[in-house]
Amino acid sequence: MIRHWLSFMYQDHIRFGTLEDKRIQLWDGSMFEHPEPSGVYLNAGEVDLLTPTSPSKILALWNNFGALGAKLNLSRPEEPLYLIKSPNSYLKPQGIIRQPASGGKVVFEGELGIVIGKTARQVSQADAEHYIFGYTCANDVTAADVLNRDPSFAQWVRAKGCDTFCPFGPVVASGIDPGTLRVKTILNGELRQDYPVSDMLFSSAQLVSLISHDMTLYAGDVILCGTSVGVGSMKPGSTVEIEIEGIGRLSNRFE
Amino acid sequence: MIRHWLSFMYQDHIRFGTLEDKRIQLWDGSMFEHPEPSGVYLNAGEVDLLTPTSPSKILALWNNFGALGAKLNLSRPEEPLYLIKSPNSYLKPQGIIRQPASGGKVVFEGELGIVIGKTARQVSQADAEHYIFGYTCANDVTAADVLNRDPSFAQWVRAKGCDTFCPFGPVVASGIDPGTLRVKTILNGELRQDYPVSDMLFSSAQLVSLISHDMTLYAGDVILCGTSVGVGSMKPGSTVEIEIEGIGRLSNRFE
Repeated sequence: MIRHWLSFMYQDHIRFGTLEDKRIQLWDGSMFEHPEPSGVYLNAGEVDLLTPTSPSKILALWNNFGALGAKLNLSRPEEPLYLIKSPNSYLKPQGIIRQPASGGKVVFEGELGIVIGKTARQVSQADAEHYIFGYTCANDVTAADVLNRDPSFAQWVRAKGCDTFCPFGPVVASGIDPGTLRVKTILNGELRQDYPVSDMLFSSAQLVSLISHDMTLYAGDVILCGTSVGVGSMKPGSTVEIEIEGIGRLSNRFE
Repeated sequence: MIRHWLSFMYQDHIRFGTLEDKRIQLWDGSMFEHPEPSGVYLNAGEVDLLTPTSPSKILALWNNFGALGAKLNLSRPEEPLYLIKSPNSYLKPQGIIRQPASGGKVVFEGELGIVIGKTARQVSQADAEHYIFGYTCANDVTAADVLNRDPSFAQWVRAKGCDTFCPFGPVVASGIDPGTLRVKTILNGELRQDYPVSDMLFSSAQLVSLISHDMTLYAGDVILCGTSVGVGSMKPGSTVEIEIEGIGRLSNRFE
């Protein structure tokens, strides 16, 4: 069964629920363990959306799409290549992406995010899907000028870890097959990225399995699957949206 | 006033306190905001030590000591170069460092850790010390074979982010001047690293100030200052200790 999960502030508490015909049903318990529908429905305007989960970590893939690898003339990687998005970078739907104090060019990267549903440690590829709760939309925002300006050390963590540089949400969609999805990025109403998830070099199941052999993954953790062609920079005042049909549309302004 | 802060499980609750003549005084409230001494003393054997803080992030410097930079023929960096230690790598004092599933050489790196005391965002160098709560000992454990095996992408986050790869503690020392300290690493009773903190390329105040312009730092966050000469690998069954006189001695086994 397909469900769209959200987290939000309601009556001064962090709650979660499901989107149903533009209303939100409140649920009780934990999103990941025996959640219980309450039968109480809210209007979307009554709640203040948060990031859909509170991850202990968000990992982000580099060079995981065939088309972008071909464009940049990269070799196909033998194993997933990834970094971490710093927790101060997490940003809720409609939150404002801020220019870092260092200035410079800031780029969007529309991405599919895998949301982990239970503790995954050394999981086989065949079992991996049982550890996936669902999928979300994310923007892997990057301070492009910082990344390679020191020739001795690629500053991935810093360039991608500035405050507000990891919007994700608005929902986690469970019960969907990501293989047929397309990731679209819309900047000020103009389509800038539109690529198929099927072009991923490592599939969701491969990513969860292989990464879980290095690092234990926990419920709510997110793996950003990497981006593909069409990445570009944002001017202050821009609105950037990441849309994946079947999941939703994540919208943020950049100031 | 110099104090040595610890966190621990006591009667099924996470508590904190100070080391006093080998006993532990329980404190109430928050370690970082108006902590209150309780007047209740425990014997060290009554508690199960935890990592002294629960960081939202631990950053780790690369190439921040003159002697190691000279040995490796590295240029002096123009800005702090850093990565993040994944939260699944945090390990308590006496916890066991585990060989990752991927196998390969695992190395110790004894380091000084700066512990943040309050939210630091775009802090000046002159003000930085007001945001430092104290200092701790850390072992920036690294899967050396993973780090550079892909020629297109240095796998810093992965090589340093395996489960159990970031022991820190046993205490946070507040009220001390780190400039005169020495960091020692003892492997199976043998001194392997012994270097002065004064050889740091970026000082504690510079690190806090510069990094706080990229990323907001929160109370309990840790900045590992980088290591110096003497790094080496560990065989299963080894005991590795990081000792900084004036702070304490962090001891862990590697299996």
